[in-house]
Amino acid sequence: MSNFGCAHLRVVNPYEPAFREARSAVGAAELLASAKAYPEVSEAVSDCALVVGTTAVRHRVLQQPLHRLEYGARLIRKRLPSGRVALLFGSERVGLSNQEMSHCHWLMNIPTREDHISMNLGQAVAVCLYELARSDRFGTGSAKKELARVEDVERMTGILNEVLRASGYPGPRGSNELKIRRLLRRMNLSAMDAEVWLGVLRQILWKVQSEG
Amino acid sequence: MSNFGCAHLRVVNPYEPAFREARSAVGAAELLASAKAYPEVSEAVSDCALVVGTTAVRHRVLQQPLHRLEYGARLIRKRLPSGRVALLFGSERVGLSNQEMSHCHWLMNIPTREDHISMNLGQAVAVCLYELARSDRFGTGSAKKELARVEDVERMTGILNEVLRASGYPGPRGSNELKIRRLLRRMNLSAMDAEVWLGVLRQILWKVQSEG
Repeated sequence: MSNFGCAHLRVVNPYEPAFREARSAVGAAELLASAKAYPEVSEAVSDCALVVGTTAVRHRVLQQPLHRLEYGARLIRKRLPSGRVALLFGSERVGLSNQEMSHCHWLMNIPTREDHISMNLGQAVAVCLYELARSDRFGTGSAKKELARVEDVERMTGILNEVLRASGYPGPRGSNELKIRRLLRRMNLSAMDAEVWLGVLRQILWKVQSEG
Repeated sequence: MSNFGCAHLRVVNPYEPAFREARSAVGAAELLASAKAYPEVSEAVSDCALVVGTTAVRHRVLQQPLHRLEYGARLIRKRLPSGRVALLFGSERVGLSNQEMSHCHWLMNIPTREDHISMNLGQAVAVCLYELARSDRFGTGSAKKELARVEDVERMTGILNEVLRASGYPGPRGSNELKIRRLLRRMNLSAMDAEVWLGVLRQILWKVQSEG
């Protein structure tokens, strides 16, 4: 929750010792300390404008609309500016009861492999909140790498061919040279890597020539 | 892993009692039973064509390209038809070391709140695999080039490092070795090109050693 910017944990009818003695993950102590306990779902969600339940169930007849997480998260994001949204998770072992589900406007499930739809609670929460916080805008992302200029790649080609000649690499010289040129072009080198390679190849050339 | 259809768990240098006695989540017993342990990262990923590391770090100077999960997952999906992809996670407490990261082609992070970037390991794995499975099209892909297996790229790394040592390439040996490993990973070699490079490098090594 803390990783994805959700600050309000509400727990319904928790097993007291486990809840009070729970130790938070690194960085989430405040969130856990400010968690509130309620005796009933209805009280826990009373100040919310939208209540969304989560379930692994797909084939049982559900009384509410069921959306895949990707789509459900989109609906939730639209509603967030206009009111609090509660995301309701059931217990690790049995999930939400019909009674608990009845407090939900609609339900959401995480798409998984058909043969294994039941998820660990902590992981299910993380995946749902990740999807909610997810954005397709890669923003600044990773700057495109600047590609090596052809003249540097050609310089590498020349040096490597000299190294191979001095090393007795088998095959006719002309076709070897073309082979090496194509090989280096396929590397799609960045400008920085081309510089490293030039240093590497020059050192090797110096060695094979100094002792030739 | 099982929820999102990933069947192959490989563990590097695990704490034996914890690993052997681990109990799986409901439905994932088979996956855990067939998990394999390896002494080194290099051996765990040797038959993979792409190795992607995961990290919470954003501001430290990283030696490899770093992509947000949404974008990284897209790159991984594109590459899946042409070879095995390893997703590498570090330990719960300290994440991946520089040494472990040097086996990765690039790195990926999960976008989180700036004030809380460190995630629980199990949750991080779930979120990454959810995102990978998310766009449900795992595409058959059209005859992509077959990528070099990591063990061949690692073989190249070893030979080139030997060549550089014999050639008196400047700089401390340990950091040179990591630099070369990363350099070769960035080439994204095809299986055929890796074979050519192995021939080229072996010839050069023979030369520099025979005259050393």
